[in-house]
This record gives sequence, structure tokens and C-alpha cells, in this order.
Amino acid sequence: MAELRALVFDVFGTLVDWRSSMVAEALAAGRRAGVDADWPAVVDDWRRAYHPALDRVRADAAWRDLDDVQRGTLTDVLARRGVTLPADEQEGLVQGWRRLRPWPDTPAGLELLRTRLITATLSNGHVALLVELLRFGGWRVDAVLSAELAGSYKPDPAVYRRGAALLGCAPGEVGMVAAHAGDLWAAAEVGLRPLFVRRPHEWGTGVAEDPPDLPDLVVADSLPELSSHLGH
Amino acid sequence: MAELRALVFDVFGTLVDWRSSMVAEALAAGRRAGVDADWPAVVDDWRRAYHPALDRVRADAAWRDLDDVQRGTLTDVLARRGVTLPADEQEGLVQGWRRLRPWPDTPAGLELLRTRLITATLSNGHVALLVELLRFGGWRVDAVLSAELAGSYKPDPAVYRRGAALLGCAPGEVGMVAAHAGDLWAAAEVGLRPLFVRRPHEWGTGVAEDPPDLPDLVVADSLPELSSHLGH
Repeated sequence: MAELRALVFDVFGTLVDWRSSMVAEALAAGRRAGVDADWPAVVDDWRRAYHPALDRVRADAAWRDLDDVQRGTLTDVLARRGVTLPADEQEGLVQGWRRLRPWPDTPAGLELLRTRLITATLSNGHVALLVELLRFGGWRVDAVLSAELAGSYKPDPAVYRRGAALLGCAPGEVGMVAAHAGDLWAAAEVGLRPLFVRRPHEWGTGVAEDPPDLPDLVVADSLPELSSHLGH
Repeated sequence: MAELRALVFDVFGTLVDWRSSMVAEALAAGRRAGVDADWPAVVDDWRRAYHPALDRVRADAAWRDLDDVQRGTLTDVLARRGVTLPADEQEGLVQGWRRLRPWPDTPAGLELLRTRLITATLSNGHVALLVELLRFGGWRVDAVLSAELAGSYKPDPAVYRRGAALLGCAPGEVGMVAAHAGDLWAAAEVGLRPLFVRRPHEWGTGVAEDPPDLPDLVVADSLPELSSHLGH
């Protein structure tokens, strides 16, 4: 097996806690606007609309960034739930994806992994969003890479290939770190090495997604544990 | 004028001292190979071959990364000077562009500028090279951006436009920081704000390049001085 040189990380759910952050944003927006709603359910619906919406963008001729996609899905979700929220508060929620808190182990875990390996994001968030997200959360990677740089969205194989190529690595020299089986299936399909991190609190349930049944899968409960599984 | 939100930085000569670093690399390579040559002159010739070579890549259909371009120009320069250097030492010199020392004010100056502004490289070095260069020198920006992401080389206007767009900024919200007038002329042409940093030791002469005659140009002798000129 090729020596591991770099790790690329999924971001939403893997490195940052989108749900508790966005529920807090939505509750605050509702309070300011005097709008009552089941905000945790709105946030969960919004997040569930994410993958189908990205599938539609991949099928379209023109790529659109995540802000643009999420503006559309938020409007749909609010309409379906009969919630009226002023336009400025809706835009505030879209921008809220730049203010997601990292999981407690993320900043130090990334620092630990960086000592031996090149680290990069490989997120469906666009570069501008990711840059602000990292600044907000105070965590660091060597390169902010995004599906945007392949003009597509995960799980398009082009995204994983582009990520490895931009780091000057063969796919087998790169580990994909994610809390989601689908991301790892797609990454492994093009030759990246799958590294699964359990995030039981992603959906607020305490139950983590099942790891994918992939050869040579590494499974960890935190980034520091991942680091020790990698022999560092 | 739009508020400044981000700074993009030229790298070779502006943030890192390519010449003294590469002269040391070349002297060491020559010693190891037992090859006598005027190594500082080889390095200067090599660097002078850089812009014309990038001009040729821009005119070509297929983009090639800087390692590939510099492999070719190094072979030419050595041949012109009648210097024979083993292939592995030549490749070592090409890779040496990942081991350039930052100017003494670079790491802390970038930290200072990062407190108020988004910072990114905008270099003709490709992403993989830049990632290793930053790791080697221990300095930090919010995003590693490269001409590679526009599939071109500076001073192609597409590179500056792509840099601003990836940061989610209008061109006028972005300052281009460089020690080279040509870079700033091209950046200003597409609406970026020109910020000139004098680097008198770039060519080992003690004499800095003249700043370009551009409206609203900011001139500084170091990154901390640039930060105070920006009112930070």
C-alpha cells in the first residue's frame, strides 16, 4: 500500500457541529422576528434537503455555490412548514453556515494530524464559506479545498480526484476522513483511503451513523484517536 | 471605495527569500555531486527564465505546473552554462522551491494582517508546492490560492479575478500584495487594490524594485508596516 501523505476532511458533521449551531441561529432569528416555529425540525428538514439539491446542481449545466443552493432549499422548507421569516433573517440563516462550532476535539485533533500529514478540507462548502468557517472556529488545515474547485459536488468522483491532484498526491496516498458512509464509499471508489469518525451527536440523537463496509477501513471516535490509529 | 476585506499575496520574493534559499540548495547540490559552477549565477539565470517560460505556458493549450516548467528551464540554464548535474540533483533543485525561507517579518506580519482581513496566497506556484512551502516555513494564510486554480499564470487577469471570486469578494474588496510592479499593474487592471512591499534583498543587491505608478498605491517596507498603513 502507498504511504499515506495527506488527509482530506469532510466538514459539515465531521469537523463541525452544524445542527446545534444552526438550531441556535434559527431560534435567535425566530425570536428577533417574533416568529414561532419548531426550529430544530426546520433545521433538520433544511439539512435533509441538502443532498437532493446538490444532486440537482450536479445534473445542471451551471454550478452554483452552497449559499445559493441553501437559499433555495430554505425557502422551500419554510414554505412547506408554513413559516414566514423576513428575507434578512433568511439570509442570516444562510450565512449562519459560516458560524458552525467545531466539535470539541477538532482544533487540537487537526493540529496533531498536521504534524505528520498534509491536511485539507474537502467539503461541499465553497472556498469563501470554508475560509470564514475556519476563521470563526479557530481551526486550521494546510489547504482549504472544496468541491467548488472541481466545479461539482461530492460524491462526484471528480471532486476526490481533484482534491488528491491539487495536493500533488496519488489517490492512494490520501485518506478521506468523514462521519458519513456515502462520502467514504465514493472516495474509496476512486482510490482514496477511507477513515471513518463516529459523530453520534451530529443529528442530536446520540447515535452515530454505521461505518461503511469497506476494506482497510479505519474507525475512530475522535481525531486524536484517529491519529493514534494511524500510528502517530 | 469598497471596504478592504481580503489580501492576496504574491509569494516568491514577496513572502519568501527564494534567492538565498536556492543559492544554498544549489551550492549543496554542487558539493554533493562534485560539480563546480557559479551557482548564484545559475540560480539567477534560472529565475530570469521563469517569466518567459510562464508566458509560453499561457500561450499553450495545456497548463503545466511550476515543477514541470522549472525542470525544463533548469535543464536549459545548465546547458547554456555548460554545467552537468546528475538528474537526481536537478530534481532536488526543482523540489527546493518548496524549501524557501520566509522573510523574517513574514510569519508574524501575516498573523497581524489575519486578525482583521482574510489572507490568501495568490502565487504562480501550484497548490501542492505552496502547501509544502508554508509547512516548511511555518507561516499561515487563510487560504492557499494559486494561478493553478484559474488554469493559468499571472499576469493573466483571470488569475486575479478567480482569486477574488474564490474568496467571495468583489475585486475592489481585495488588496494584492507584491514586491513586483508587474504583478500590481495586472491586479489593478482588473480592480484589485495595489499594495507594494519593498524587498531590497530579493536579488541580493540591497536595491528594491521601484513601486509602480498606480493611483492609491500603498507602499511599505515590511508586512507589519503594511498593517499599520492599513490603519490596523
